[in-house]
Amino acid sequence: MQPSTSFDTKDLRNALGAFATGVTIVTTRGSDDSDVGLTANSFSSVSLNPAMVLWSLAKTSSNIEAFRGGSHFAVHILASEQEALSTRFATKGVDKFASLELERGPAGIPMLRDCTARFACRTAFQYEGGDHVIFVGEVMAFSHSQKSPLVFHGGRYGMLLRKEDAPPERVREVGTSPSPDDLIYHVSQAYFGIRRNAMKDRQRRGWTDLEYAAMAILGREDGQSVAEIGASVRERGRQVTPDVVAGLASRGLVSVAEPLSADSVARLTPAGRQAIIEIMAILKAGEAEALEGFDPSEIQLLKQLLRRLCGDREPG
Amino acid sequence: MQPSTSFDTKDLRNALGAFATGVTIVTTRGSDDSDVGLTANSFSSVSLNPAMVLWSLAKTSSNIEAFRGGSHFAVHILASEQEALSTRFATKGVDKFASLELERGPAGIPMLRDCTARFACRTAFQYEGGDHVIFVGEVMAFSHSQKSPLVFHGGRYGMLLRKEDAPPERVREVGTSPSPDDLIYHVSQAYFGIRRNAMKDRQRRGWTDLEYAAMAILGREDGQSVAEIGASVRERGRQVTPDVVAGLASRGLVSVAEPLSADSVARLTPAGRQAIIEIMAILKAGEAEALEGFDPSEIQLLKQLLRRLCGDREPG
Repeated sequence: MQPSTSFDTKDLRNALGAFATGVTIVTTRGSDDSDVGLTANSFSSVSLNPAMVLWSLAKTSSNIEAFRGGSHFAVHILASEQEALSTRFATKGVDKFASLELERGPAGIPMLRDCTARFACRTAFQYEGGDHVIFVGEVMAFSHSQKSPLVFHGGRYGMLLRKEDAPPERVREVGTSPSPDDLIYHVSQAYFGIRRNAMKDRQRRGWTDLEYAAMAILGREDGQSVAEIGASVRERGRQVTPDVVAGLASRGLVSVAEPLSADSVARLTPAGRQAIIEIMAILKAGEAEALEGFDPSEIQLLKQLLRRLCGDREPG
Repeated sequence: MQPSTSFDTKDLRNALGAFATGVTIVTTRGSDDSDVGLTANSFSSVSLNPAMVLWSLAKTSSNIEAFRGGSHFAVHILASEQEALSTRFATKGVDKFASLELERGPAGIPMLRDCTARFACRTAFQYEGGDHVIFVGEVMAFSHSQKSPLVFHGGRYGMLLRKEDAPPERVREVGTSPSPDDLIYHVSQAYFGIRRNAMKDRQRRGWTDLEYAAMAILGREDGQSVAEIGASVRERGRQVTPDVVAGLASRGLVSVAEPLSADSVARLTPAGRQAIIEIMAILKAGEAEALEGFDPSEIQLLKQLLRRLCGDREPG
């Protein structure tokens, strides 16, 4: 434990930052009728009856007088997609309310739209809190929706993942096919789903799947012998024989030295390279289509989880 | 917005629950030297200099006198894996401290181990807060670690997912093979990784991959015609011909009426059924091995993300 009283501020911030919070924007109206607002994560609900919430503000804040003198304030809980709004209201010297559609609450306080929840409050108490003032508000009106919240932790934004209960340990008999309870079921669906259009294109080109496998191996590393291609494909449980390569050569997709043997080195021809690039483009399009509606964080997370599945046990 | 003053409590709770929070256990020592503790998510950091934090407790709580009368309290911020501890300290009538290793803080207050962060506080202020008392503590000592936090939102536990910046929009040329930047790369790795041992077993049995494909189709639904089996396999870009089925029949794995035609219905023999069950068991074992070290929530999440990839756009 750190010794008492005089702490290293960075250390203290880090320790306090271990508590995850939502993110709010608190607004009021200044004595000059200006709209005032700032981002705060010190929000806490206090009382149900009467309904009360609190938040705290640094005594040195340029907004302190507006809140100290104001009779009301509004608290807006931000949704996951409102990170930019959070940053805007945390930035000095910008017109925070520019082009925002506002509603007006009690005493004309500005109320933002499209937040997860918002509370119009009468300032009930102002309490001493070291270098901050604690504002306790009585809730006069509120609304809320079911949006996923913006989360703040350790000085960074995050998203919430709901903990799921572990499914009950069913002693399920092993059946004759994977079920939707099995991960492999979903992995297979994803694998064939993303590849669907690319594989249609392969068929349209008249390539067998073994021919495609051999082309894909050469796409990964060009200039491999027939034996090497065979070994790579065999890892995935398939058999590429020299006549598969011969077939590709006869259609001008690979060039290979005659007479064909296990040691013959095959290379993609320009036409073969072009064809495999076209199929890869369709594969990429299939991936982009599958990922429609995913947040970048979710994509990173999915890749990370799949990497761990494949034995990469390193964190991150 | 809800009308003022008398709110529906459930509605109000839901709106307040839209603010995500960490989860803490707050402890103190009762006047009879008993250890007192409870789960609270009303924690908020207040001041850096002096270091101050707050939390609030219902006036009707059975623990209110211990905290009102105590000179000190400790706040423990819980890590993601401490959900059970959170539940324990939120439950009435259990011995909350049973078999926990405790340290002692100022005035003998009980301090728990292995939390993400903890703060030993002197009770600086007790403030009126409707049906709650707001306790403001001056931090006397603290410690923290880098554990992932337990999060609470909408009445349920959650985990934090750090927002990742979207990777820069590289205008990457489409290459001749998927790269680790591509999701399909990881999906393929997972698909072949989980199946590896099952496919080795298939090879050991001398089944070609097309024979396996036909057996898997019958495992999913027994009693299909050769044409139906062919159509199912063809969806995945492969060709099962009657002689594949004939080969399986000659090895006693399927029974099929002679003479063999596209309309002949194939069924798994007991031996065939047994073989496919054995391979499924190996597949399940491969899945369990891949999932070693995964939290049940992570597994659910992974399945959920993969389902969404496959076009299931429903939330949850």
